Amino acid sequence: MDERITEHARTLVDWSARVEPGDDVVVSVGAGAHDLAVAVCAELGSRGANVVTTYSSGELDRAYLLAHDGDFTGSDAELALYEAADVVLRLGGPLNTTAMADVPGETQAAHARAHEAAREARLDSRWVSTVHPTRALAQQAGMAFEEYRDFAYEAILRDWESLAEEMARLKDVLDAGSEVRLVTERDAAPNTDLTMSIDGRIAVNSAASVAYDSHNLPSGEVFTAPSDTAGEVFFDVPMTLQGRRVRDVWLSFEGGAVVDFSAGANEGVLEDVLDTDPGARRLGELGIGMNRGIDRFTDNVLFDEKMGDTVHLAVGRAYRSNFPPGHEDEANDSAVHVDMITDVSERSRIEVDGEVVQRNGRFRWEEGFEAA
Amino acid sequence: MDERITEHARTLVDWSARVEPGDDVVVSVGAGAHDLAVAVCAELGSRGANVVTTYSSGELDRAYLLAHDGDFTGSDAELALYEAADVVLRLGGPLNTTAMADVPGETQAAHARAHEAAREARLDSRWVSTVHPTRALAQQAGMAFEEYRDFAYEAILRDWESLAEEMARLKDVLDAGSEVRLVTERDAAPNTDLTMSIDGRIAVNSAASVAYDSHNLPSGEVFTAPSDTAGEVFFDVPMTLQGRRVRDVWLSFEGGAVVDFSAGANEGVLEDVLDTDPGARRLGELGIGMNRGIDRFTDNVLFDEKMGDTVHLAVGRAYRSNFPPGHEDEANDSAVHVDMITDVSERSRIEVDGEVVQRNGRFRWEEGFEAA
Repeated sequence: MDERITEHARTLVDWSARVEPGDDVVVSVGAGAHDLAVAVCAELGSRGANVVTTYSSGELDRAYLLAHDGDFTGSDAELALYEAADVVLRLGGPLNTTAMADVPGETQAAHARAHEAAREARLDSRWVSTVHPTRALAQQAGMAFEEYRDFAYEAILRDWESLAEEMARLKDVLDAGSEVRLVTERDAAPNTDLTMSIDGRIAVNSAASVAYDSHNLPSGEVFTAPSDTAGEVFFDVPMTLQGRRVRDVWLSFEGGAVVDFSAGANEGVLEDVLDTDPGARRLGELGIGMNRGIDRFTDNVLFDEKMGDTVHLAVGRAYRSNFPPGHEDEANDSAVHVDMITDVSERSRIEVDGEVVQRNGRFRWEEGFEAA
Repeated sequence: MDERITEHARTLVDWSARVEPGDDVVVSVGAGAHDLAVAVCAELGSRGANVVTTYSSGELDRAYLLAHDGDFTGSDAELALYEAADVVLRLGGPLNTTAMADVPGETQAAHARAHEAAREARLDSRWVSTVHPTRALAQQAGMAFEEYRDFAYEAILRDWESLAEEMARLKDVLDAGSEVRLVTERDAAPNTDLTMSIDGRIAVNSAASVAYDSHNLPSGEVFTAPSDTAGEVFFDVPMTLQGRRVRDVWLSFEGGAVVDFSAGANEGVLEDVLDTDPGARRLGELGIGMNRGIDRFTDNVLFDEKMGDTVHLAVGRAYRSNFPPGHEDEANDSAVHVDMITDVSERSRIEVDGEVVQRNGRFRWEEGFEAA
């Protein structure tokens, strides 16, 4: 077995999920994640944890959902399983990333609503989602399989402890700050100049470990919840929304809300998103990608938004973890949370309260940082 | 998808497990049983049942067991899952039937003991085990894959209702009878002439449905629990015991117990089995195979012992279901239950209380039966 699979399993079990002897662990095995599951079971065995393995496949879900009359009820067995679990490890690894393409969105949503209690029980555990590189993911990224594996392990097998320390520096700056300004200059596209309030918010150091309240491996971003957004922003990175490719998104904000927008392709999809509900025109997240193991966009937001030298903004729902106790109801609410990514590697800066924290992709504490 | 897979799923869900709307169903998916799982999920969806899918793989079990220190505890999550389940469908389908070959038997046994509560909860559900034909199973049978699939579906896709009715006739004979005599004549091997008491026992009509307290698909046998066995028996069909091939087993009984034995190959393995405990020298089961869809031996007891025109005897543990309420403690007890099969298609007869019920593979109620 590829030694990187073993290292991935070890990182997941130790760094991410902090598995202890006697933990009841549920391992969800994607249809293409068998090899990672073997390695994870070995790590769990050596730590004296208990294991139940579940199976996750878009093809099974599709068959079930298309055959069902749509009047879903929750599963007591699923609920009992997750209520009893200390840890849930989700090993993604699709054989076809579009396996559910012909299942109506309303059907999927109705099923998800009926299983909300089980989902919440799962989210109450020390859960971590990760991904085993498959040919389907390589194809989605437009990459060869071997090339994609190298890419994925470069992102996953970081020195997480030192990255967590570096991200803590940015978190400290954001926690102490009141206003963020994002500026980029482009020749063939609109410039960005956006200001957001982060006053009273708590930045999350998303270091791919439950110890940091971070539940994805890979991760590597610091995010907070902005408000009172004003100005304009251009997103260099294409995204897939509702199965369609949306490019060159430009948003204009006044008083915290989007007042104008455009897209270079599939602008109607963007409009649908923004018209979902009032919260869909406000920002729910400002995230700063710091995982330099991720060196390209692969049409997979789990990786894309963590990429070093990028900033992402999400319209829609904010995470409660960015609000101090008692202030959770200030979080922007919406049925959507759509991340959009902009490249900050060149001709760009991030300011906090007027001081430059990052310029052209270099942070203040890094070699090569230019103060002015 | 092969239409037979859909029929298999339908048989499993309707005939075998009697799934009802709202049932909480746990589907255990073998590593090679994905396609059957897709079909089963469609059937469960159309019936409005709830589904949780678990994943079963010898490779995962091996990795876990070899890495563990051996001090196993049960899993609360596994127990909770099965306690909440109405139905458990186990879809076997190994990628390698010897995936666990290097895991010590004591380790497997210790793990099984620690998970006894979950096993019992599973056996308290409407559980059914079946098998999806895989290349590994074809190889174990010494068959081509396509050939093996034809074989497996011939065994699985029976007219179970009419087979259940036919088996009920044999059950009635056995329930009313007191003594069974099995006789076979061979030229190049010892003859069989064995008598067994079945007085007060209840025969089980194993018709591949929970409605018949029968939990395997395929099935197709009527079995009871004999005692006071006397005489000699020769088993034509080779078997795999403890991973080794045992042939030409001959047993001699006096007063209910084996007093002499021999085997044409690996006699030591047979001796180990018989010396396990005192119950291992007594019979736990007399089974009469009635599935004529099974036309050859495939080194898989799930199929072999159900073959039409065969009789199997098991040394060791008896099933409680063969004893009337209050008499369960009369069941033979042992740590083992080893089935051995003899061919009754030619020069053979089964008598109950002196009357011939089957001769040369033909039952009394069948065309071609020769009374004398």
